Amino acid sequence: MQTVELITKKRDGGTFSTDEIRWLIAQYTQGTIPDYQMASLLMAIYLRGMDARETSDLTLAMVNSGEQLRVNTLVSPVVDKHSTGGVGDKVTLAVAPLVAACGVAVGKMTGRGLGHTGGTVDKLESVTGFHVELSRADFMRILQEHQIVLAGQSSDLAPADGKLYALRDVTGTIESIPLIASSIMSKKLAIGASHLLLDVKFGSGAFMKTIEQARELAQAMVEIGRAGNLHTVAAITSMEQPLGYAVGNAIELREAIDILHGQGPADVSELCYHEAAELLVMTGKAADLAEADQLVANAIQSGAAVKKLAEVIAAQGGDARQIENPDLLPSAPIRVMLPATQTGYIAAINAEGIGLASMSLGAGRFKKGEPVDHRTGLLLKAKIGDHVNAGDPLIEIHARNPEEAQQIQSALLACYQWSETPVQVQPLICDVIRP
Amino acid sequence: MQTVELITKKRDGGTFSTDEIRWLIAQYTQGTIPDYQMASLLMAIYLRGMDARETSDLTLAMVNSGEQLRVNTLVSPVVDKHSTGGVGDKVTLAVAPLVAACGVAVGKMTGRGLGHTGGTVDKLESVTGFHVELSRADFMRILQEHQIVLAGQSSDLAPADGKLYALRDVTGTIESIPLIASSIMSKKLAIGASHLLLDVKFGSGAFMKTIEQARELAQAMVEIGRAGNLHTVAAITSMEQPLGYAVGNAIELREAIDILHGQGPADVSELCYHEAAELLVMTGKAADLAEADQLVANAIQSGAAVKKLAEVIAAQGGDARQIENPDLLPSAPIRVMLPATQTGYIAAINAEGIGLASMSLGAGRFKKGEPVDHRTGLLLKAKIGDHVNAGDPLIEIHARNPEEAQQIQSALLACYQWSETPVQVQPLICDVIRP
Repeated sequence: MQTVELITKKRDGGTFSTDEIRWLIAQYTQGTIPDYQMASLLMAIYLRGMDARETSDLTLAMVNSGEQLRVNTLVSPVVDKHSTGGVGDKVTLAVAPLVAACGVAVGKMTGRGLGHTGGTVDKLESVTGFHVELSRADFMRILQEHQIVLAGQSSDLAPADGKLYALRDVTGTIESIPLIASSIMSKKLAIGASHLLLDVKFGSGAFMKTIEQARELAQAMVEIGRAGNLHTVAAITSMEQPLGYAVGNAIELREAIDILHGQGPADVSELCYHEAAELLVMTGKAADLAEADQLVANAIQSGAAVKKLAEVIAAQGGDARQIENPDLLPSAPIRVMLPATQTGYIAAINAEGIGLASMSLGAGRFKKGEPVDHRTGLLLKAKIGDHVNAGDPLIEIHARNPEEAQQIQSALLACYQWSETPVQVQPLICDVIRP
Repeated sequence: MQTVELITKKRDGGTFSTDEIRWLIAQYTQGTIPDYQMASLLMAIYLRGMDARETSDLTLAMVNSGEQLRVNTLVSPVVDKHSTGGVGDKVTLAVAPLVAACGVAVGKMTGRGLGHTGGTVDKLESVTGFHVELSRADFMRILQEHQIVLAGQSSDLAPADGKLYALRDVTGTIESIPLIASSIMSKKLAIGASHLLLDVKFGSGAFMKTIEQARELAQAMVEIGRAGNLHTVAAITSMEQPLGYAVGNAIELREAIDILHGQGPADVSELCYHEAAELLVMTGKAADLAEADQLVANAIQSGAAVKKLAEVIAAQGGDARQIENPDLLPSAPIRVMLPATQTGYIAAINAEGIGLASMSLGAGRFKKGEPVDHRTGLLLKAKIGDHVNAGDPLIEIHARNPEEAQQIQSALLACYQWSETPVQVQPLICDVIRP
């Protein structure tokens, strides 16, 4: 096959055969196809699209480009979950131990944050000693012994995806639904869980700006799951404002612990409980959502859920006392309360703006490889629909120093829109897509 | 400026500012923008297009990426001509000396053939000793002394175009009208003639397959000429069958000499005389086409035209006796007459097929840098509209050996379509686009 012929085929709106896609990915992984040809092809794919069969073929070719863990040959069922990322998204920190506490194994690899969205790895690393770089053997052992493991993403899995993603990042070809879907799903299929729950977010703080885009992405991933024998369900959720109150690292882990105690903010707690219940139904642990909700409620009331989080933290070298007593988690030396400058109902909170402000406090990173400060972040005191009086607490800023706390205040205030009349709060879960 | 932002701007259908285009070309020429980013951008330009202003800006940015000859500061007027390339296209070989013999200087750089279309440089190099690699000083001196110079393309002119063209060649982004137009015109503007005649071909043997595409390309180049102060006229001509009878190198030069003697095939002779006349009118040497036609006829009848060809050949080191006596030109050791296998009117001759057959005789090259055999080629004995009886001569094959002559026979016969009833011959010049 000739690379230029395949580029012109896609450029002119053609559809690749399975063999053509396998050949392209194999040659690119080996380095036979240079970056400049793949860059041109990626732009052609971006503008011409790929159908569901091509997208599945691309995903499976990327899975086959490296090692596969096949965790479900060791433990079954074993579930995985993935969020497309948002601001204040600590859902994995709560859902994974909740599900494991209900008796369903969770084997998850997770990423670091970049830009305005946080990463589960960074939040977990708030715990002293906790490490995410696990060997394949340790990943398998911890999963078997504790029914839960939370590792960093291994570059041995789907290496073609890693190489393609790095190229997409510098060639303006990130925001393509078939390319996003195949990138996410290649890493999931390479782990080899039996069930996957996706949280596809849309709104100002999310990668997908509209519900239509989110639904299209979710549909594409559920289709790939079907092609790859991974039972996949996708929840479409709103990211019109930060999830919960906490935005940062240790501060978000603290909120996740509150959720596991049944004491978290209503919005994010409801989302976590729903996702956990959905996974229990998917795996047959519960007959229906009502029974699953009961199992989840039991795990919270009995303390089993928070105990499971402490257990995995300890298994991965972390100080479990910080879970039992969150006051032991790292905290920022400076706390500044930003008051509301006007009276009214909060009509909107720009999640991306809040995420960027948290990032500038050190809680996020501008470039890959930069360290993050686990102590800093923001604690919202009111959310959309709340009535606030001028001078009431609006946000607590957790900063390294007074200057950094000062610098973001006007940007934070600009994230808010106000209404004189009561505001309707939109539901968080907007749709669920099943295979 | 950020390269990724500019890529996404074009990807999303945006229009570049003049400064953005200048920046992109400057950075790419310096190597600051890597090939993989430019490849992605080229595919975005291919699929999203560029408007006339962007296309002119791109052309001028490429002109400014290197040296400029500004020949019109030395000799004025000085004309240039360019053909988009076809099969049997020896027009430059006749038009340049014709125009120069009429007293208008011709300063031309020309290319080598690739694939099924031939190159003027290869045809000229059939003459023993003729060389096209001229220094800037020699180019200028020969132009001043002889009012005509026929050089190879200098890589010092518009180097950004050379770099971009090489990348387009391997990334499936050749066939874009704004990119083709800017590539051709950047080299023309860098030479700096005062007047340019373009021959934009369409049909089976040409790069542009339809008259609409040819017209669009011609229009784009005439617009760029206007923006770059180069008076440009474009003729839209048909390439539904090879031009004239000869396809090859020495064999085409021979036919060009016939044209300069007034003894060439009707179709290509008419085209050459028209193009020469058009240039005489453009430069004010003749008041109108009728007067110009008379000047051209005089140059042929007086022998001045063929003498001018011999003069430039000698000036560039070639053996002028081969022009005076074309029997001295290199010729193939084997000549095989292929007879018609049926009786009827020739309805079509696939020019691309004829070009490919000539290439496989050694007259053309599959890859850049390969040598060509100047002796080989094809001599058509009948053209569209002619009535031929089975067994009559159809094509004379000029080959290196009997095997190569044999191998192409069935492919050659497959190039012909036949009709039992008389066939209408389409005119060669279909349209002329003036600024």
